[in-house]
Amino acid sequence: MNGAESLVRTLVNCGVDLCIGNAGTSEMHFVSALDRVPGMRAVLGLFEGVVTGAADGYARMAQKPAATLLHLGPGLANGLANLHNARKAQAPVVNIIGDHATSHQRYDAPLSSDVEAFAATVSHWVHSSREARNVAADAARAVQAARQAPGQIASLILPADTAWSPALGPAGALPVLPPAPVSSLAIATAATAIRKGKAALLMRGALLHGAGLKAAGRIAAATGTRLMADTFAPRIRRGAGEISVERIPYRPGPALDFMAGIETLILVGTQAPVGFFAYPGQPSEFTPPGVSILQLAHPHEDGGAALEELASLLAGSATARTNPLAPPAAPQDGTLTRETLMAIVAGRLPEEAIVVDESITGAFGLYGMLETAAPFDCLQLTGGAIGDGLPMATGAALACPDRKVVTLQADGSAMYTLQALWTQARENLDVVTIIYANRSYKILVEEMKGVGAEIGKSAASLFDLANPALDWVRLAEGMGVEATRAETVAQFDSALTAALKAKGPRLIEAVIG
Amino acid sequence: MNGAESLVRTLVNCGVDLCIGNAGTSEMHFVSALDRVPGMRAVLGLFEGVVTGAADGYARMAQKPAATLLHLGPGLANGLANLHNARKAQAPVVNIIGDHATSHQRYDAPLSSDVEAFAATVSHWVHSSREARNVAADAARAVQAARQAPGQIASLILPADTAWSPALGPAGALPVLPPAPVSSLAIATAATAIRKGKAALLMRGALLHGAGLKAAGRIAAATGTRLMADTFAPRIRRGAGEISVERIPYRPGPALDFMAGIETLILVGTQAPVGFFAYPGQPSEFTPPGVSILQLAHPHEDGGAALEELASLLAGSATARTNPLAPPAAPQDGTLTRETLMAIVAGRLPEEAIVVDESITGAFGLYGMLETAAPFDCLQLTGGAIGDGLPMATGAALACPDRKVVTLQADGSAMYTLQALWTQARENLDVVTIIYANRSYKILVEEMKGVGAEIGKSAASLFDLANPALDWVRLAEGMGVEATRAETVAQFDSALTAALKAKGPRLIEAVIG
Repeated sequence: MNGAESLVRTLVNCGVDLCIGNAGTSEMHFVSALDRVPGMRAVLGLFEGVVTGAADGYARMAQKPAATLLHLGPGLANGLANLHNARKAQAPVVNIIGDHATSHQRYDAPLSSDVEAFAATVSHWVHSSREARNVAADAARAVQAARQAPGQIASLILPADTAWSPALGPAGALPVLPPAPVSSLAIATAATAIRKGKAALLMRGALLHGAGLKAAGRIAAATGTRLMADTFAPRIRRGAGEISVERIPYRPGPALDFMAGIETLILVGTQAPVGFFAYPGQPSEFTPPGVSILQLAHPHEDGGAALEELASLLAGSATARTNPLAPPAAPQDGTLTRETLMAIVAGRLPEEAIVVDESITGAFGLYGMLETAAPFDCLQLTGGAIGDGLPMATGAALACPDRKVVTLQADGSAMYTLQALWTQARENLDVVTIIYANRSYKILVEEMKGVGAEIGKSAASLFDLANPALDWVRLAEGMGVEATRAETVAQFDSALTAALKAKGPRLIEAVIG
Repeated sequence: MNGAESLVRTLVNCGVDLCIGNAGTSEMHFVSALDRVPGMRAVLGLFEGVVTGAADGYARMAQKPAATLLHLGPGLANGLANLHNARKAQAPVVNIIGDHATSHQRYDAPLSSDVEAFAATVSHWVHSSREARNVAADAARAVQAARQAPGQIASLILPADTAWSPALGPAGALPVLPPAPVSSLAIATAATAIRKGKAALLMRGALLHGAGLKAAGRIAAATGTRLMADTFAPRIRRGAGEISVERIPYRPGPALDFMAGIETLILVGTQAPVGFFAYPGQPSEFTPPGVSILQLAHPHEDGGAALEELASLLAGSATARTNPLAPPAAPQDGTLTRETLMAIVAGRLPEEAIVVDESITGAFGLYGMLETAAPFDCLQLTGGAIGDGLPMATGAALACPDRKVVTLQADGSAMYTLQALWTQARENLDVVTIIYANRSYKILVEEMKGVGAEIGKSAASLFDLANPALDWVRLAEGMGVEATRAETVAQFDSALTAALKAKGPRLIEAVIG
């Protein structure tokens, strides 16, 4: 058994059974080993941003890591932006990054680079194996690191000779510590603050789609405590039968208004809210002066259990208020707009869908319209590195083959990693992609105003995607995905209904103003 | 005047008059300043790999840097792979990378990352401006660093508040040192070695397309010295009327055979040749034992002038042998293969074309077929990070609007940065892209054999691009580029003839076995 086979067998031993990759020469022995080890599925992405974004989406839904397979420094570099998003999502990912053979590393060959330096920019754990006999143990440590709460990026660098040289055998899984318990002092302090009134719980992490959310709902019902989530949450349970959680607005002014009346902000698995960007003369911090900030649970702590303890202290027999199934009425026809599009999505969304939201301006301000749709999980762009939507949908579909994935996707961002559509076609993944074709980086036009800058001709040319217009039907068909264009309400409703009924990838180019 | 405007004016003062970018909120004041400063052209790329690859191609042809405009760590991350290629090409590039306002950097906002760490992976020079009043001086230093021989990657990080806060004014250009002179000892030593016989000159850099190449040709004619270039050269002058330079083979075995009979290898602006990858049991070094290696000129030294001095010492009145205009005969019709395709390209290539070669297996072994075509400049993939071809062609066309660019492009690599086609359409760039549609990562099938690994079902699935087949005609049309498919010699010849006659971007999907 060579090092590569010991690595693949170790990954399977550790519960990693999906490898999404784009390999090169230095990874050939790893690739060859995939065929000798049962239990590991291999999926090809035609660009590494697809690979790492799919690993992010997979991890958010499967709640365990996939392995990525990346080709030296540049292959890793192409995947860094979506690893940044995964890091901000606290999604566990195990990167296997090929490198030159150790004997070849002293030469400045064309593909030579400092792989560890590339990896360090986004990783919580980085290690370069130096001997084939250590690769299995290194892999077990990498998976352990990735699975450590709340989820980490682990990057294992595999020089080619450590893959092809003899190794003893695979390693077993290492224990993964559960999330740390929250101290009783923190729980008591939070309880006191909530009893005082004018408190809010700002939540992130597993509790937004697990038992902790129900407990938070009971606390809210019993005490009037507001429930909040970050503007961009990794995964949040929404829709009918679920607890409503308010979303912090994107801009400083509205965010501060949103916080008005709060005296204590209790953080559960997140940090105090700050602006996505700074704007001249506006504050970075979204908590008004005088608000007390309490940290009930850090991200690595068990915020869900803490909320359940709090609920038993505070909520008595109160039951949580849940959303009714009452999607907004959709018009029969007329102009397709952001609003009418969202009404149709809300009405047509099947139960247990996964909604991947990289709509940027497409759904800003319309968040509430899905509140009374059928229950679903929503995945958002956590790190602001655009181009996560199509890959994340790909990974979510790999994790949950029995659930429909619906991607709300801005056109400018979609162009970053459009190659994901090919993997969706290749694997026949059950994903409906809705492209918001407004043919501009529309958010930047708004951001120019936000920062007080003027838009001239050059500036406008850097925001405009209309010259030439992207034809998303041809782009999708070019990668084997059936696609259609919708310019009216009736066309969109009909296209969405057909796409949801079909099994396999479909794309709808929704032309909106 | 704010910091951003002082920066743009400084860039123009320093001779940087093209900005290729993809901006976000933190770069809005820079974007706005573009409209207030005459003399700076702004070009949009729909993905940062396009932006940096275009800057690479532009620099190789214009022999001066363009500025890139990149959005924080993740935007830079998307451009790193092609910056890696530019670094290996010794192409000058000035990156302007937006960052959060200095007051916002203490918060862990979604887009927060260690921008300097990302930049350091590929840059020779990195600096983060901390005050608006320093931005102009920092920009002048960045351009100076980029232009320092043989060409460097300079990354200037621009926090948003240093862009929007008041600055005094622009800075003037700083002096750029010429390449260092080669010592007379090095020239005398090389002359002695060449007189001894069995010598070869291995060359890289400006001399491969400048006066140095003519001098090398005279030395070769007078002394029988072999002339060689690295397997992948940044830019090399080729075709009729030019000096023939041998290309070092890609694999160790053929490379060592190629070097047989050489007793002294004289390096001019390059390093001793090594393998692209290591293979089990095969050497990394491509110089057989016993070969003496002399460094005539380091990359930062004036190798061209050194060759001219050597020629005056050694070549007397000898004239260089140049290639005749005698492209290989092309068949009239029949199956389209790598060979017949290349024969047609050789016959049809217009004078002073720029050939961008990312054909990978498409043209391996067929390098000589263009030797007697009309004279052209050839740009190759220097860093092995695939996805440089379409962007590099874009940049070359921006640098040389009066020359036809012909891109020989492998399909798998083309998928990495296909968004470049949109910029070609937008700017109506005169580029003919030939996609070698073999529908696989064909090189990897060969590399599996090279490293002695077995190909099973999973492995094969990671190389195969045929399921589904990519439709390059639709992909190109989806981005506004006219395209056609050619499956026979006659179809390809007709498509190429039409594309070369037209002005503006065209794509031909050449279906080859």
